[in-house]
Amino acid sequence: MSWTMARRAERMNPSIIREILKITERPGILSLAGGLPAAETFPVEAMREATARVLADTPREALQYAPSEGFGPLREWIAAHLGAQGMDVDSSQVLITNGSQQGLDLAGKLLLDPGSRVAVESPTYLGALQAFAPCEPEFVALECDAEGPVPAALDAAAGARALYVLPNFQNPSGHCIGEARREALVAAARRLALPLIEDDPYGELWYDAPPPRPLAARCPGQVLYLGSFSKVLAPGLRLGYAVAPEPLFPKLLQAKQAADLHTPGFNQRVVHEIVRNGFLREHVPTIRARYKRQRDAMRESLQRYLAGLGCRWVVPSGGMFFWVELPAGIDAMALLPQAVEAGVAFVPGAAFYSGTPRHHTLRLSFVTVTPERIATGIALLAGVLQRALSTTPHLTA
Amino acid sequence: MSWTMARRAERMNPSIIREILKITERPGILSLAGGLPAAETFPVEAMREATARVLADTPREALQYAPSEGFGPLREWIAAHLGAQGMDVDSSQVLITNGSQQGLDLAGKLLLDPGSRVAVESPTYLGALQAFAPCEPEFVALECDAEGPVPAALDAAAGARALYVLPNFQNPSGHCIGEARREALVAAARRLALPLIEDDPYGELWYDAPPPRPLAARCPGQVLYLGSFSKVLAPGLRLGYAVAPEPLFPKLLQAKQAADLHTPGFNQRVVHEIVRNGFLREHVPTIRARYKRQRDAMRESLQRYLAGLGCRWVVPSGGMFFWVELPAGIDAMALLPQAVEAGVAFVPGAAFYSGTPRHHTLRLSFVTVTPERIATGIALLAGVLQRALSTTPHLTA
Repeated sequence: MSWTMARRAERMNPSIIREILKITERPGILSLAGGLPAAETFPVEAMREATARVLADTPREALQYAPSEGFGPLREWIAAHLGAQGMDVDSSQVLITNGSQQGLDLAGKLLLDPGSRVAVESPTYLGALQAFAPCEPEFVALECDAEGPVPAALDAAAGARALYVLPNFQNPSGHCIGEARREALVAAARRLALPLIEDDPYGELWYDAPPPRPLAARCPGQVLYLGSFSKVLAPGLRLGYAVAPEPLFPKLLQAKQAADLHTPGFNQRVVHEIVRNGFLREHVPTIRARYKRQRDAMRESLQRYLAGLGCRWVVPSGGMFFWVELPAGIDAMALLPQAVEAGVAFVPGAAFYSGTPRHHTLRLSFVTVTPERIATGIALLAGVLQRALSTTPHLTA
Repeated sequence: MSWTMARRAERMNPSIIREILKITERPGILSLAGGLPAAETFPVEAMREATARVLADTPREALQYAPSEGFGPLREWIAAHLGAQGMDVDSSQVLITNGSQQGLDLAGKLLLDPGSRVAVESPTYLGALQAFAPCEPEFVALECDAEGPVPAALDAAAGARALYVLPNFQNPSGHCIGEARREALVAAARRLALPLIEDDPYGELWYDAPPPRPLAARCPGQVLYLGSFSKVLAPGLRLGYAVAPEPLFPKLLQAKQAADLHTPGFNQRVVHEIVRNGFLREHVPTIRARYKRQRDAMRESLQRYLAGLGCRWVVPSGGMFFWVELPAGIDAMALLPQAVEAGVAFVPGAAFYSGTPRHHTLRLSFVTVTPERIATGIALLAGVLQRALSTTPHLTA
């Protein structure tokens, strides 16, 4: 018996991050690889109260089949929440998804034909590449600097079905697109009639100042916006949302319906119960304070241990990641086994490129481990890098 | 600004059932249209205990990102549960999905190329047609009788990527494939090297005798099996599972990962907490007893009100639906507005055909409303049909 797979299955690949995570789950490995929020921030007490409340007040509604669009009051809350960030959203535009990853899957299904073009940042979120790849598009990797896509580079995206962009504290690079750059990008996108898929899981995680208004606040008809509760509440609930321009919404909804009928109504009601009275106003600042300390710890450790080794990075003003450039010629993938041997793990940067990767890059997460362990981990990494440099004499920093 | 949609989006369509449900949610409509389990059967008390337990014992694990495969102990429970039904399943073959609808979506992604062929029963589950359609396959509608696909008809499926089949109390027809027919189907599938997608959401809902062993117990390497907790616990949790032959599993897992990373870990742990000590052994018989009474009530009402009007049906021995053939020439879709006017709703059968529909068919659900209301609904339906027949004199029964 042999199964004949669809051609698109050739484009499906295991997430290198998940493969690395399996290795690094070995006890004793200090992992800066994962993108896991700190479990200490999960609102367990609020979850207890909310689940009890939902099961007391509306158990049968919460456990029954539900509309594919999502739970009405949660859609309304999301519309209002985004309104406070400058977006003009009607709740009828909000689709509740299983995390924003599902928003990417649905966006790909809706917009990408085999051979059609989709523009992405370089590097970009690996999960988006995985979601889009089975649709067999051609990826157009846009030139990026420390502020995200270079507006002049957008001409390369002319005729693409969409530009996928993470303006706030991008995974993996940590960059946040500034106000002027956002305006320039929106102007270029308008000129090219280029739709945007704006992915914003990290926007609330700012440590210095709130990020500028979303792109969707600037040209709403042109943006499919994706948001998530994973980073401000808990990822294990798998709750995200897509906000679609009116003409796009019906097909997006049909794609959702065909994919899994609807997102669990129980989870939607529990999250609505948690957020409806302003819980996030108190809760998110505690996450910010914690992650800011960890970000600062990693900044200091990098400065102390890696600055002298020819590495470069930009300090992220939010999110979860530092993106480090090693001395040219050092392949982060080749370095990883040595690092794991030494007891520390990271994600090689090559995974995040749709096209030609830059092999001397890596991603470090600062949100999962304590400041003390961050320092230990960076010191270990520096040792590994130093040894690699010493065996590659012409590269010594 | 105009969005260019992918070609597959043309194949996405709103579910006619969901559209009908919107109409029939009007107060005062007695709906036999929906396929909603009776909310009275939802194990609310068990949910209360299980959520409290999970949030007390493993809150952080339950709320964190989790493996795409699913929660290990739940996968093991499912493998053992299916073992008791004659299947030989290793937990490594089990993928936890967002309801079995997601299993259909992933199966389509994995197996169906544009223009490739997929065989289906005629009629078949509308949600499967919706899940497969965006992959742009050619549907091959197999001839069916009261026992499901006619084995000789399988030759028409030669070369198809798969045959999609619901052996137990099919939605919409209610048919259950008998032992001899199962063996004949499996033999034909073997001969044709035709993979099977076996969808089994209703297998536990038998009212007279348990159904024969699953097809997956007969030719395991040839079957992608889909199961669900929606009908035995509650659909609002969106928990289903796919059991894949070993060679298929890695790509299935990658498709799941790209689709939404993983099914909510919280829900998986709660359901495992509920089922792990044998809860279903007590619980499912209460569902069976309730639905059997309702099935019997509908059987009696149909006999009393519709037998004299030239209608035909086969009494289902399980599941949720009666499939009724009206007198030829009566279009159930045209009848629906009159029925809604009279205060009763059903689903016209045409929605369930991949090819040429039989317009004089309709689906009636007996699980959502009480026996008394079933009688009222069928009487109303008979009145509507009688009026339709009287205005179509040559059709009078």
